Amino acid sequence: MNLTYRTDMDSKYVIGIDFGSDSVRSIVVDAADGSELANAVVEYPLWKQGKYCNPSENRYRQHPREHLDCLERCLNAMLDKCAPEVRKAVAGISLDSTASTPVITDRNGTPLAMLPEFSEDPDAMFVLWKDHTAIDEADRINEVSWNWKEDFTRFSGGAYSCEWDWAKVLHVLRTNPAVRAKAYSWVEHCDWITGTLCGNTVPETMARSRCVAGHKAMWNAAWGGLPSWEFLHEVDPLLDVFKGHLYTETLTGDIRIGGLCTEWAGKLGLNPGIAVGPGAIDCHVGAVGAGIDQGTLVKVMGTSTCDIYTGRYEDVGDRPVKGICGQVDGSVLPGFVGFEAGQSAFGDVYAWLSRFTGKSIPELTEEAEKLPVTPEDMVALDWFNGRRTPDADHRVKAAICGLTLGSTPGEVFKALVEATAFGSRAINERFEEEGIPVRKIVAVGGISRKSPYVMQTMADVMGMPVSVVDSDQTCALGAAMFAAVAAGIYGSVPEAQKAMNVKYCAEYVPDAGKSGIYDRLYAKYRKLGLAAAGLK
Amino acid sequence: MNLTYRTDMDSKYVIGIDFGSDSVRSIVVDAADGSELANAVVEYPLWKQGKYCNPSENRYRQHPREHLDCLERCLNAMLDKCAPEVRKAVAGISLDSTASTPVITDRNGTPLAMLPEFSEDPDAMFVLWKDHTAIDEADRINEVSWNWKEDFTRFSGGAYSCEWDWAKVLHVLRTNPAVRAKAYSWVEHCDWITGTLCGNTVPETMARSRCVAGHKAMWNAAWGGLPSWEFLHEVDPLLDVFKGHLYTETLTGDIRIGGLCTEWAGKLGLNPGIAVGPGAIDCHVGAVGAGIDQGTLVKVMGTSTCDIYTGRYEDVGDRPVKGICGQVDGSVLPGFVGFEAGQSAFGDVYAWLSRFTGKSIPELTEEAEKLPVTPEDMVALDWFNGRRTPDADHRVKAAICGLTLGSTPGEVFKALVEATAFGSRAINERFEEEGIPVRKIVAVGGISRKSPYVMQTMADVMGMPVSVVDSDQTCALGAAMFAAVAAGIYGSVPEAQKAMNVKYCAEYVPDAGKSGIYDRLYAKYRKLGLAAAGLK
Repeated sequence: MNLTYRTDMDSKYVIGIDFGSDSVRSIVVDAADGSELANAVVEYPLWKQGKYCNPSENRYRQHPREHLDCLERCLNAMLDKCAPEVRKAVAGISLDSTASTPVITDRNGTPLAMLPEFSEDPDAMFVLWKDHTAIDEADRINEVSWNWKEDFTRFSGGAYSCEWDWAKVLHVLRTNPAVRAKAYSWVEHCDWITGTLCGNTVPETMARSRCVAGHKAMWNAAWGGLPSWEFLHEVDPLLDVFKGHLYTETLTGDIRIGGLCTEWAGKLGLNPGIAVGPGAIDCHVGAVGAGIDQGTLVKVMGTSTCDIYTGRYEDVGDRPVKGICGQVDGSVLPGFVGFEAGQSAFGDVYAWLSRFTGKSIPELTEEAEKLPVTPEDMVALDWFNGRRTPDADHRVKAAICGLTLGSTPGEVFKALVEATAFGSRAINERFEEEGIPVRKIVAVGGISRKSPYVMQTMADVMGMPVSVVDSDQTCALGAAMFAAVAAGIYGSVPEAQKAMNVKYCAEYVPDAGKSGIYDRLYAKYRKLGLAAAGLK
Repeated sequence: MNLTYRTDMDSKYVIGIDFGSDSVRSIVVDAADGSELANAVVEYPLWKQGKYCNPSENRYRQHPREHLDCLERCLNAMLDKCAPEVRKAVAGISLDSTASTPVITDRNGTPLAMLPEFSEDPDAMFVLWKDHTAIDEADRINEVSWNWKEDFTRFSGGAYSCEWDWAKVLHVLRTNPAVRAKAYSWVEHCDWITGTLCGNTVPETMARSRCVAGHKAMWNAAWGGLPSWEFLHEVDPLLDVFKGHLYTETLTGDIRIGGLCTEWAGKLGLNPGIAVGPGAIDCHVGAVGAGIDQGTLVKVMGTSTCDIYTGRYEDVGDRPVKGICGQVDGSVLPGFVGFEAGQSAFGDVYAWLSRFTGKSIPELTEEAEKLPVTPEDMVALDWFNGRRTPDADHRVKAAICGLTLGSTPGEVFKALVEATAFGSRAINERFEEEGIPVRKIVAVGGISRKSPYVMQTMADVMGMPVSVVDSDQTCALGAAMFAAVAAGIYGSVPEAQKAMNVKYCAEYVPDAGKSGIYDRLYAKYRKLGLAAAGLK
């Protein structure tokens, strides 16, 4: 690849911002080589206190005011660690957020909780990705879509989730008359933050992220934007309130959506007018920070996994890939089709066994590591939180098969680690079956760096090497790469990735002696899965 | 039923003796009404120290000398608690033992460990029922039998167990040349004790129990006794050593096999010549003590279950009942076909979960009791120690299906309790399918008196009332009933049962509201079983 370095390359810095579930994190890096100058993390204080949330109802809300405050504190804390001239050499900012995390706004695009009369109303705040209050609304959307002339869920894995925009905003409209009376539009978290930084949050004109619109709001070029108003009216006439107040155009992450507004330039001590890129979903941006290219599957491994893959448009076209939960042209890398898959429980499975047995994960790991791998071993299913991909089904459940009176917690832990790896293998196999081969696996996230046992098992089960990225900030780093492209420092995201230097700290190579055994155990996993699905 | 009381009914006492795994227990009761005068228990001291055993090899041996010593101490301790005239009014003695618990003898019928030169050789001692050293020998017996002109395993559930006589004595012959050189015959524990009490242990003439011969040594009237010498020679020519030194006749429990010999009458202060009945297997005798009659299934519920049923010969004939592990004419009640079934893990399943979670069974029970029963509940398989009946298969294993991140130890305990009850239901259904209906369930043993939760679940799952016997000495009581018949006090075992007054302490009645739900969960249990069997 020929890199097109600009002449004004020297001493250009870019900022990447990552809004996570619990905190906002930022880094400022040298765009020339990705080297980090400083970073900062600020936790959301109200969220930490549990305000506006009710876990027993799966209600999780975050206050927009708090996010702006934390952003300002985080960036200043970071920049204060740098030499004074760094602030003036920052060329661009990009960010990612959790998603789908929408909020209802007034006609100015202001989240209602920013208005005094709604400042304490959870329904006027961001509905966090993991909020599950909108199950009925998701069911309604699916019911209508599956019987509509166009199935708008077909690029969303064939089923709309209660974790996504339309279900959430409809739930709020249905249940909160005060919010309903004031509602004019809605906005995703990442769009609202970038709009705020650019000084334009007007619903009809602000920039919208392709990534979040495509994966969470059923935006697709195939039907010219969001689902039709006729369809949304059929779902619930309450949605008519948004008619004409949303968008048809979306932007990929490499575009400069505007310049930093005077107000925020003043708050941060940055030059007004520097490039701001569109927001995007955290895992997608993290995959870019982890060096994703065509054919690589990036697995973000934590309590659950989010798996990001980029396919070539010529391989995929407008064909929905069966059973994968989202596919959007340009959502990860501009010019490629971005896929989102994942396992709805991963580290959470190990944590369950730890709670269940009263043994720590390191203890369980130590026991499991000593065990041989044989074709007669216990086999488990990883569906402790339903199944996200392939073939989303929140009703399926987990199983453990092959127990005896001598079965120990360590043996069950081994079976569960293998089960989570089998779940990963099932995703890879689905991509393969659909003609889009996975050639490489890159892992990021807590588990990838903390558990060599899990990672080695993953490599053994997948039968391919698994590389681990030497950073726990790939999301912020990926955002910085997008910022560098939005600022015009690089002509494309792959150029930025190459220059900004993704490092790996480990590569797990499959143990050839185990592959035949794991093929047999995986076949049992598939059989057990069919049986368990028949019992739900 | 017309009871035929004898005129000399007054003040006749009978003694029942129960040789368990850890101790010998005896009771002396008034034959008129079964009221207990006294009892005693004596533990085996060498066994308690673990002598002659090696649990890691599943080798469990017991010294014959110790059993005679303990028997003498136990009976005298018991009789010393009674008025002096009781000793002189004892009319009969019967006993039961664990089985199959054989020992190799010399030509006098003396267990070799009773001879000075073999006194410390474990292979010259009783091979306790749970000893699993003879797996290879059981495999050989099955291999030959399944290809023989006559399948001698057909009344033993179609497979000979490593826990049974022929496998055990062959294993000793194969592995211990000194014992082999001295071997002349072998004897089951209960036969050797009754022979000793009567003063005749000569292999060719001593009395042999129908119950133990039929259930453990493949004795059957259908082939005129034990398996043919030609067959045994084919299994291993080493077995030729026993040729002509065993038996063809066996006796049911109601027969007087002889009178108490002078030596033992002297040791115990009893009248010489009082009736001694044949021995039998503990669970079978316990079923009699629990009031078994035709159509009742008696479940002895402990770490595993032993299920005893008596069928009418006209319903069963010589037809082997499919998948039930033993059926012998007269083994429980003379004149009926005795069946032995069982679950190879029952209380052991609960103990496993207790170890696995670190929670006590009472804690788990308390959590489980609070849970509702719904058709969506977790379903488990109880095959933690393989499956004994129906359709013995030691290779199948247990499973737990329907786990979520929220699954608690109490929920899993509930599923395991239900699984053990489903295992019981599968046995009942097999009897029903084979045309021999179970009309009533009577439970004895530790769990039946300790866990109302397990017992209520059992009743709900079975859809029929379950009565619990108000005694933990049903085996000794059953032996006393046999003694009363052997002594001529009653004309039949049912008469003795009726007069000697079995009491129930609880009856669990099915909750009609749950039966439909349990039907659905049981259907899932069956499906899961098929799936799990396919994965072994």
